[in-house]
Amino acid sequence: MTKTNAGHFFEDYRIGQTFRHGPLRTVGEGERALYQALYPTRFAVNVSDPLAQIVGLPRAPMDDMIVFHKVFGATVPDISLNAVANLGYADLRWLRPVYPGDSLGAVTEIIGLKENSNGKTGIVWVRTTGMNAAGEDVLTFVRWVMVRKRDAAAPAPDPVVPDLPSHVAAAGLAVPAGLDFSGYDQSGVRAPHRLGDYKVGEIIDHVDGVTLSEAEHMMATRLWQNTAKVHFDITARPQAQRLIYGGHIISMARALSFNGLEGAEFMVAINGGAHANPAFAGDTVRAWSEVLETADTPAPGVGAIRLRLVATKGSAAGVLKGEDGKYHPDVLLDLDYWALMPV
Amino acid sequence: MTKTNAGHFFEDYRIGQTFRHGPLRTVGEGERALYQALYPTRFAVNVSDPLAQIVGLPRAPMDDMIVFHKVFGATVPDISLNAVANLGYADLRWLRPVYPGDSLGAVTEIIGLKENSNGKTGIVWVRTTGMNAAGEDVLTFVRWVMVRKRDAAAPAPDPVVPDLPSHVAAAGLAVPAGLDFSGYDQSGVRAPHRLGDYKVGEIIDHVDGVTLSEAEHMMATRLWQNTAKVHFDITARPQAQRLIYGGHIISMARALSFNGLEGAEFMVAINGGAHANPAFAGDTVRAWSEVLETADTPAPGVGAIRLRLVATKGSAAGVLKGEDGKYHPDVLLDLDYWALMPV
Amino acid sequence: MTKTNAGHFFEDYRIGQTFRHGPLRTVGEGERALYQALYPTRFAVNVSDPLAQIVGLPRAPMDDMIVFHKVFGATVPDISLNAVANLGYADLRWLRPVYPGDSLGAVTEIIGLKENSNGKTGIVWVRTTGMNAAGEDVLTFVRWVMVRKRDAAAPAPDPVVPDLPSHVAAAGLAVPAGLDFSGYDQSGVRAPHRLGDYKVGEIIDHVDGVTLSEAEHMMATRLWQNTAKVHFDITARPQAQRLIYGGHIISMARALSFNGLEGAEFMVAINGGAHANPAFAGDTVRAWSEVLETADTPAPGVGAIRLRLVATKGSAAGVLKGEDGKYHPDVLLDLDYWALMPV
Repeated sequence: MTKTNAGHFFEDYRIGQTFRHGPLRTVGEGERALYQALYPTRFAVNVSDPLAQIVGLPRAPMDDMIVFHKVFGATVPDISLNAVANLGYADLRWLRPVYPGDSLGAVTEIIGLKENSNGKTGIVWVRTTGMNAAGEDVLTFVRWVMVRKRDAAAPAPDPVVPDLPSHVAAAGLAVPAGLDFSGYDQSGVRAPHRLGDYKVGEIIDHVDGVTLSEAEHMMATRLWQNTAKVHFDITARPQAQRLIYGGHIISMARALSFNGLEGAEFMVAINGGAHANPAFAGDTVRAWSEVLETADTPAPGVGAIRLRLVATKGSAAGVLKGEDGKYHPDVLLDLDYWALMPV
Repeated sequence: MTKTNAGHFFEDYRIGQTFRHGPLRTVGEGERALYQALYPTRFAVNVSDPLAQIVGLPRAPMDDMIVFHKVFGATVPDISLNAVANLGYADLRWLRPVYPGDSLGAVTEIIGLKENSNGKTGIVWVRTTGMNAAGEDVLTFVRWVMVRKRDAAAPAPDPVVPDLPSHVAAAGLAVPAGLDFSGYDQSGVRAPHRLGDYKVGEIIDHVDGVTLSEAEHMMATRLWQNTAKVHFDITARPQAQRLIYGGHIISMARALSFNGLEGAEFMVAINGGAHANPAFAGDTVRAWSEVLETADTPAPGVGAIRLRLVATKGSAAGVLKGEDGKYHPDVLLDLDYWALMPV
Repeated sequence: MTKTNAGHFFEDYRIGQTFRHGPLRTVGEGERALYQALYPTRFAVNVSDPLAQIVGLPRAPMDDMIVFHKVFGATVPDISLNAVANLGYADLRWLRPVYPGDSLGAVTEIIGLKENSNGKTGIVWVRTTGMNAAGEDVLTFVRWVMVRKRDAAAPAPDPVVPDLPSHVAAAGLAVPAGLDFSGYDQSGVRAPHRLGDYKVGEIIDHVDGVTLSEAEHMMATRLWQNTAKVHFDITARPQAQRLIYGGHIISMARALSFNGLEGAEFMVAINGGAHANPAFAGDTVRAWSEVLETADTPAPGVGAIRLRLVATKGSAAGVLKGEDGKYHPDVLLDLDYWALMPV
C-alpha cells in the first residue's frame, strides 16, 4: 500500500463533511521578515509596534495576507490536492488580528457539490475558518475548486450549490477591536491620501513592476505550506516552466498597490477573485486598482474602501476584459476586496 | 603575513587534539521561518507550539537538521577548510531538543589519522559534540574527511583508525525528556501511518520533486555558516557551476520524505551517510526511503524507525547501486538514520 | 490627480527643511536570520548572545549594516526617489547598539543645495539621523545626491555647500556603552589577529568570492524598504539587467572581509564612500581592505581600525584607480570606515 497522500477525489466529499486541518501552526517574526523580503510591501502597521499602538492595537499584527496564506495552505492536503483549478472565492473576512507567536489552525466544511457534465470532474464548495490557539476565529472564506473524480463511473451526488453573497456588505466588515485611526498622522506615516480623496470609479496605476524569479516564488510558496509539484518541479510542466502559485501574485499585487494606497493598512474582506491567467518566472508584474465603493465604519477615524486589484504582466491600467468578456491575456489576477484606511 | 584563514592541513592534526569552535551562536524564529521557506518540510512538531505541548515539550523545538547544520558549520574553519571530500558519518545522535533563543557551540576531538598511499592527503576522523549555553550536549557525531597535506614530505603519523559502530543501536537513542506521543492524534495532525504500518524492507517513493535553484542553495548554505567558495563563486568551478552543499541535499530529501513518513517527527540518530554524487542548480531532486528496522522506546507512544533515505536526480525509487557496487550516477545521497514516530 | 508618490524634485528642497520619515519600524530576529542567509557574514557578536554578554552588552545587537540599511531605506521616498546618483557619504557614525524588538525611525535635514551648471539637476546634501523608540539617536550621516529638477526653468537657489570632515576623528567614535573586549578570547571566538597585528598601509586580500544572483539582491533590497524599479523590473533597464542596489554591495564586501578581519566586530563610522561602478547578477564580487589608521579607544581592550574596503568584480587586491585618477572598471565600491576590534 502506498504511504503517500493521494488526496481526496470528488466522490469522496459529502455535504456537511468537515475537515480539521491540524495541528495549529505558530507564526512569528521570521515570517514577518521574509514577507518583507519577498514582497515590496511597505504598509506600515504590520512592521511597526509604535504605529500599531498609536492605532489602538497591542503591537504590530501579522500581515493579513500571511494569515490568509497560512490558513489556505493548511487546507490544501484535504481539499485541493486533486484540484484542476481554484475557481473562486467569496465572503472572505478577516475577523481578528494575528500576532507573532500566535498559532493558527483551520477547519473546512463541504457546503456544495456539483458534478460536471463530462463526468470526470466536479465542483466542490467549501467554507474554511481559521482560528488561533484560544479558539477564536481569525479568518473565514468560501472557495470553490474543480476536483477530479477517482472513478468516472462513481455516481454523481445530488447537486448542491450554495447561495453566496456577491460581496461582503460594508456593515459586515470586522474592524479589529480597539482600532482607532484618529492619531494615525502622529506616527509620521507617509500616507498622503485619506478615504475622502478616493472617488468611486477612479483608476490608480501603481506604476512599479517586479520581474518574477524562480527562487522567490518557491520560497514564498513553501512558506505557505503549499508543496504542489507544479510550483517546484520543472519536469512536471510543459517547457520546464514552473507555474507560479496564485497566492504569490495576490501578495505581489497587494504590495505593489502601496504606491497610491498607502493608507489602506488592513485587508478586511475579499469579495471575490479570479486567477485570470498563469504567471511564470520572467514575467514582470504590475498592478492597478479601481475604487468600487467607500464606506464608514463604527471605529473612530476608520473608513472602508472596496477596491478591484488587478495584476498584469503587460496590459495597461484599466484594461481588464476584451469584447468577448474574456480576460485580457496579460491579466493575471482580478481581486475584489475591502481595506480599512484613515478617513 | 597573510591575515586570511588558510585552515589546517593533514600534518597539523594530532590524536587527542581538541578544537573549541566558539563562540556559541544563537538560533531563533528567523532560522525556523527560513527553513520552511527553503525546504518543503511539513513535519509539524517543529512549527507548532500547541502540538509540541501535546507531546510533552515546553514549545516547538528547532528542526533537528537546523541543529545539525549549525553545529557542523561551526567546525568547518578548523576541520574541513582543506578537505577534498567529506567521506562519511557515524554514530550521530541528537541528545536534547534545541529551542528558539538557545545558543549553540561545538567542540571537536581528533580521533583518527591515516595518511593515504599517495602521500598527498590523509584521512582525519573527528568526534564533534554540540552543546547549548548551559553546557548540555545537544548533538554528537563522528565524521571523517580527506584532507590535503601542506607539505607532501611531512612524515606520516602512526595510523589510528577508530572503531566505529555500524549503526546506533535502538537502545542508544536519546528520546527527548518528557516526550509522549499518546495524545498525538488530538492535535488533528495529518499523519495517517503509525510505526506498525511500516514493514522492514518496504520502499516508500516520496513522489514530489524540487528543481534546485542557485539562490536557494546559497542562502541555505550561508545560514549554516558554510562559506566554502565552491558553493558561491562560479569562477571557482568548471563550467561555471556552483557545487551544491551536501547538507542542502540532506535537508531537501528529509523534507520531501514527509509525504509518506508524516509521523516521523524527530530525527534522533544518523547511522551513516554518503554524498554519492554532486548536485547542481537545475537538477530535480526526488527522494525515496527504505524501512530498515523498527523498535520500541521507553517513552509512551514513541517508536523508532530506522530508514535509508535516498535522494536522486532521476533514478527510480529503489535504485541505489549498480552491479559494480557503485552508486547509480543519479543518486545524490544515501543516508541511514533513525526517526521517532507515534506507535 | 495621480495618487502615486512622484517624490520631491531639486527645487522642492530648502536649507533647514526637515523630513520625519515615520513611522518607526520594528526590527528583529527575522532580519537577523535573513542577513546571515543573504550575506556570508560570520562576525560573531551579532549572532551570539553569550559573546555579546562577555563583551559587556545585554545581548547580541543587530548587525550595524542592518541599522544603516533600515535608516537609509526610510529616507528614500522623501530624499532620493528622483535621484540620478548617490554621490557620497560623510561623517556617518553609529551611536548606540540596536537590539531585536527595537523600532527605528529617521529624520533628515537639508543642509546643502547647489544647482548644476546644466540647469537640469542639482546636488542636495542631507543630514539623516536614525533613532529608536525611546528617542535615542542610533545613527547619523551626511549624504549627497544628484536630484532632477521638475522644471528646468525653476530658479537656482543660493548655493550652500556644507563643510564636511574628511573623516571621523578617532576621538569622535561612539563606542557602545559598556563595551569591554578584555574577555573576548574566553568565548572561543576564532579571530587570530588583534589590532596590533595590523599595520598602516597593509593590504588584505579577503580571497573569497560570491557570484551575485537576482533573487538574493532583490530580497535584500526589499528588506531595506528600497523599492526603486531599477532593482526589480527588467523592463526598466537596458539589456533587461536589473541594477544591483549599492547597499547590497556594501554588505557583501563587509561580510567577505571577515576572512582576515575576524575581530573587526563593530562598524562604528563611515568616513566616505563611492559606488564606483554598477553591479549586475552574474558578477562575482571579491573584496580587499587597506589599513588606513589604528587608534585606541577609552573602552577596555577596544581598539579602532580605519579601513578602506574595496569591492571588485575582477581586479586584483590593491588595484583601485588608473593613472587618469578614475576607478578601475572592475571596482564596485570604495568605502572608508572605522571598525572596533580587540587590541
